[in-house]
Amino acid sequence: MNKQITLAMGNGGEENNELISKIFYKAFKNEILEKSEDAAVIHGGELAFSTDSFTVSPLFFEGADIGKLAICGTCNDLAMMGAKPKYLTCSVIIEEGFSTRELEKIVRSMKKELEINGAIVVSGDTKVVPRGSVDKIFINTTGIGTIIKKGISSNNISTDDVILVSRDIGRHGATIFAAREGIELSSTLESDCASLIEQVEALLEADVCVTAMRDATRGGVSAVLNEWAKQSDICIEVEEESIPVSQEVYGICEMLGFEALNLANEGTFVLAVKKEDAQKALEILHSFENSKNAVKIANVSQQYKQKVILLSSYGTKRFLDAPTGELLPRIC
Amino acid sequence: MNKQITLAMGNGGEENNELISKIFYKAFKNEILEKSEDAAVIHGGELAFSTDSFTVSPLFFEGADIGKLAICGTCNDLAMMGAKPKYLTCSVIIEEGFSTRELEKIVRSMKKELEINGAIVVSGDTKVVPRGSVDKIFINTTGIGTIIKKGISSNNISTDDVILVSRDIGRHGATIFAAREGIELSSTLESDCASLIEQVEALLEADVCVTAMRDATRGGVSAVLNEWAKQSDICIEVEEESIPVSQEVYGICEMLGFEALNLANEGTFVLAVKKEDAQKALEILHSFENSKNAVKIANVSQQYKQKVILLSSYGTKRFLDAPTGELLPRIC
Repeated sequence: MNKQITLAMGNGGEENNELISKIFYKAFKNEILEKSEDAAVIHGGELAFSTDSFTVSPLFFEGADIGKLAICGTCNDLAMMGAKPKYLTCSVIIEEGFSTRELEKIVRSMKKELEINGAIVVSGDTKVVPRGSVDKIFINTTGIGTIIKKGISSNNISTDDVILVSRDIGRHGATIFAAREGIELSSTLESDCASLIEQVEALLEADVCVTAMRDATRGGVSAVLNEWAKQSDICIEVEEESIPVSQEVYGICEMLGFEALNLANEGTFVLAVKKEDAQKALEILHSFENSKNAVKIANVSQQYKQKVILLSSYGTKRFLDAPTGELLPRIC
Repeated sequence: MNKQITLAMGNGGEENNELISKIFYKAFKNEILEKSEDAAVIHGGELAFSTDSFTVSPLFFEGADIGKLAICGTCNDLAMMGAKPKYLTCSVIIEEGFSTRELEKIVRSMKKELEINGAIVVSGDTKVVPRGSVDKIFINTTGIGTIIKKGISSNNISTDDVILVSRDIGRHGATIFAAREGIELSSTLESDCASLIEQVEALLEADVCVTAMRDATRGGVSAVLNEWAKQSDICIEVEEESIPVSQEVYGICEMLGFEALNLANEGTFVLAVKKEDAQKALEILHSFENSKNAVKIANVSQQYKQKVILLSSYGTKRFLDAPTGELLPRIC
């Protein structure tokens, strides 16, 4: 490779995966990393370990802020591996001149969300850089969680599984788009940003046979399904009409020409569960406000290996590819 | 607090500690965090956990680059707690337009330094942000290490200990200053940036009674000694003439009006060891190229609680305060 890094290389989709595999995986080559899970499983399968840096703009938006996002993002990655978030680190890079009042507000959001997860920050780092070296504030959180149920993996999905989604999709992406474009909405569109540990704990405590979980962040549900199809060497057949999209998100998509399936979420997850447990999983999810509209969206087949198919109600089908292009930078 | 964040708040000294305690510790309050060690001790004392974000400018400098620094920085923080680095996460924030060739060079440096530490990167995150949102590339690494020897702590230093330094001080700070100011040196000044695990392992394997260790990064040796004086409620009496400073670093200090004691290091550590083990510790350190000039620099007393005193060869004494003011931003 001898070119310039492009915004598309950070899109959570095709080009992003290429950058990661050609530069980072190639150099850091090891079995754990190559599993490409939401979190690494370490210490004899006992702990999950995951990192995320947050660069979202604007810092404060409907439904959340960068602080809440920084805790949800990392804690959700742990939860998706069946782990209970326990210890976090918090590293901030702040631009000279940033307001301490805003910083305090961000840190309060973090504290609140840490409590929901039952996790604590045990180590930190604070850098202040001159004006122009960073835009306001970037936050890295890295977390360790205790694995409640071993063996959850995006590499193990089979035709015995069905695919569920925990709620209507695309809210976070649509909210950030609207805020950046200055779109005034009469409705109350807000980010879905939320911690997912409660739902995950409820599913695992009820012994629901969960094969894999992934929160549909950058690249949205399209990215998750395509990654899963590749990782588990399967075909995922999505019933297009079953995908829940709110009126508000649908409106933004129409206005700006987006696919809700490509929009980022920050409190919405995709699940692969054994067919016979699907109903039970949905009932448990429906008992939570944030996943009261959880629904089955796809079956797994072997029809086209490593592909995702969208089936329309008219009986037509087309491939749903991983998102490509610039999408929206600084979404998370 | 209702003011703007200043560069001084990121200096590794007085104002930095104030920001951390008033905003972060206050919100995240817990026993582990408040111990203020180089790494948090978690999982029943079995593991150490530490994070650092790297924003150094320039990215490439004499003796190292941001990649090597990012691995040394976090691995050294683990080593300072008597832990063997094992698992790291790597999160990069890259500016659109950055060269993939430079990125590959940085990642190769990381790989090389990971091998020295016997650690692997198991989880990562890659963000690309638009031009002007970040200056080139920032890297966060967060690490988990297996504690070889329990009980090492900056809160336990007593008058039974003496203070050693592993090598001549101030090289990293002086190197970055020289590079930024465009100072041409006839000598071969380069950063001390290096992994410290080998020295630490040798000391612990030889059962040297190590009370505390800390790598003297931002804020230099002054910051470490002042933190230790406070944390262990002691007085540290430094023999000024014993502090090793190379001719090159001394020259930069004279030229620019710095104190070598305040300059950052990235492969130099301060040790508190039991008096009777000091000689043994020095002999072990001397067997490594990077610490062949290790030396005792201070005694511990109760004369002035929580203070550091500099004793001159003329018998005069003065307090050595924690560094204050802007120092050099983006040093690490």
